[in-house]
Amino acid sequence: MINMNIGRRPFLQSAAAVVASGLAATAAADERTARTQPRGYRLIPCEEAFTLPEILAEARRVANNIPSMSSGPIVGPLVPLLLDLGADRLARMDAAGIDMQVLSLGSPGVQNFDTATAISLARLANDRLAETVRAHPGRYAGLATFAPQDPAAAAKELERAVQQLGLKGALVNSHTDSVYLDEPRYRPIFEALQALDVPLYIHPREPGRTLGGPALALPGFTIGWGYGVETGTHALRLIASGLFDEFPRLKIVLGHMGETIPFVLQRIDDRYRFERSLFPGGSLKRLPGDYFRENFWVTTSGMNFAAPLHATIATLGIERVLFAIDYPFEDQAIAVRSFDSIPLSDDARRRICDTNVAQLFKL
Amino acid sequence: MINMNIGRRPFLQSAAAVVASGLAATAAADERTARTQPRGYRLIPCEEAFTLPEILAEARRVANNIPSMSSGPIVGPLVPLLLDLGADRLARMDAAGIDMQVLSLGSPGVQNFDTATAISLARLANDRLAETVRAHPGRYAGLATFAPQDPAAAAKELERAVQQLGLKGALVNSHTDSVYLDEPRYRPIFEALQALDVPLYIHPREPGRTLGGPALALPGFTIGWGYGVETGTHALRLIASGLFDEFPRLKIVLGHMGETIPFVLQRIDDRYRFERSLFPGGSLKRLPGDYFRENFWVTTSGMNFAAPLHATIATLGIERVLFAIDYPFEDQAIAVRSFDSIPLSDDARRRICDTNVAQLFKL
Repeated sequence: MINMNIGRRPFLQSAAAVVASGLAATAAADERTARTQPRGYRLIPCEEAFTLPEILAEARRVANNIPSMSSGPIVGPLVPLLLDLGADRLARMDAAGIDMQVLSLGSPGVQNFDTATAISLARLANDRLAETVRAHPGRYAGLATFAPQDPAAAAKELERAVQQLGLKGALVNSHTDSVYLDEPRYRPIFEALQALDVPLYIHPREPGRTLGGPALALPGFTIGWGYGVETGTHALRLIASGLFDEFPRLKIVLGHMGETIPFVLQRIDDRYRFERSLFPGGSLKRLPGDYFRENFWVTTSGMNFAAPLHATIATLGIERVLFAIDYPFEDQAIAVRSFDSIPLSDDARRRICDTNVAQLFKL
Repeated sequence: MINMNIGRRPFLQSAAAVVASGLAATAAADERTARTQPRGYRLIPCEEAFTLPEILAEARRVANNIPSMSSGPIVGPLVPLLLDLGADRLARMDAAGIDMQVLSLGSPGVQNFDTATAISLARLANDRLAETVRAHPGRYAGLATFAPQDPAAAAKELERAVQQLGLKGALVNSHTDSVYLDEPRYRPIFEALQALDVPLYIHPREPGRTLGGPALALPGFTIGWGYGVETGTHALRLIASGLFDEFPRLKIVLGHMGETIPFVLQRIDDRYRFERSLFPGGSLKRLPGDYFRENFWVTTSGMNFAAPLHATIATLGIERVLFAIDYPFEDQAIAVRSFDSIPLSDDARRRICDTNVAQLFKL
């Protein structure tokens, strides 16, 4: 039995809030009160999701219409919010005080589809996204999707999406068929990203077969713990593979406050040295933390909380932290209020929510 | 090629320091300068390792004399430090300003041995540990080891170790043959621990087969990342299993600043509610974070760094944080200096290094 009164926010009130915010035709009343006074800077969250009817249909087909954590949301109250790229999304942004969303195709994007379908739907998603941005250039920017299933085609699509469509970077939903991007076959994707000088956002999904065994299959903890293990491991695999020695100007973005890596960054370096003294080998030119501090940015998506934000600023520097929400999986108004309640200087707020985002994505 | 000059501490200097501190017959010179002025409180680190010749011999036999991360240190410069429970250990403690060590059998303890051998060597280790404590009651306290391979025997040994030998709790090195302690068969161990009112320290080891697939096998990152994934997952499995509804007075200790859990605790609760709204089920009476705040303590072993310590105090409260080093895997003098350099009130230092440790372990 779930105890309804657990000291902090009641369990069911929150679950109900998710449903309510999904079904309401207009922005929820409590969102209207979020912005109590004008800010001196823009709020530009940068991990904000959408989907397309065509992508949803294929995701449902592949998942046999049975929802699971690996299929992404294919039914339920979040689907209308993901599909909406029109007036209602803008109204919700207004109500929560969001100036601009950096949009990306919701997880797992096209990565569960067969290669030809994935390539074709990635193109469609990028075209549709570019249209959306063109319709509201001050309110939206976009990150391209691509099909890692075909790295050469992915590199080409990234070039098209950035150079012709004006998208500002790319987003990948961690593993593709349980394979990580440190595999040499994916190097063309990174070659393109570095040449285009745009960042790659590595977004979570459920742990792949080669990472998450049954011990990690913990109902209720998949997103809060498993996604972080998955995506943090992915990031460290990129570092361990020597990717950043090969492409030293690559820019990688991690959500959820860096998927816990900032918390343990000094320990990772320290134990890397220790482990290498016991079992020599490897060919990295620098320590893991050197790459993380130089090639990575982290966002506050789902983690607009004081303690981890302060620790992350102290570890990486304010210039490496960007505001994000993870709409519609997180409630925009609650996320903004939560961020607003964190003790920070006005300058720090401006950098995190506006300047850093605009600079990294060249908005 | 490893670059020797990487901005921070040179790679090989650190590796050499491990070797030097392991081989030197007396405490290293730089340890002598660690304590520059008298403290108003004791330094009582509580994750400090030892081993016995008999345990080492069996570990070497089981590992076929081939060192690996899963066998624990069976050769190399740390072995003499682990075996030493005599004057040299005390001299090293003096030199680093350590008043008292809470000792435990080094990872993976007896957990790789066959059941009969594990039971017998656990008894031997507890007897030898108790002798050590009796010889220097002001300098050592001890945590019992046990063989999870036989839960009923483990419960009995815990009773003997606490009630007859005066040990102050127990330590387990995470999984045993890739099985976690949330399995119902292990409930007798927790029944004994709650009845004895002593804490269980869950210490890391390499990820088990049911958790860490090949994607997590990252040379150089096993300790800094993989151990945390392993032990954090273990802790969350205990919570998810309803263990703390069944035994609400259990006390669990995690090292390494709670294996990143404090950093993501609010997100874990938040996404637990969200996930449960999508896929209802489960029977926990409270939120994961409620159990973590009530039944868990965390130590600073290997994480005597400002940012994660401040974040952890802010999240859990100062009363839940204990000082630890992880000797001899960490250099005592460096750990003490690192802790001393963290901005903290005198009262906070006293609680973390002395009062909290003494209170939890009833020293």
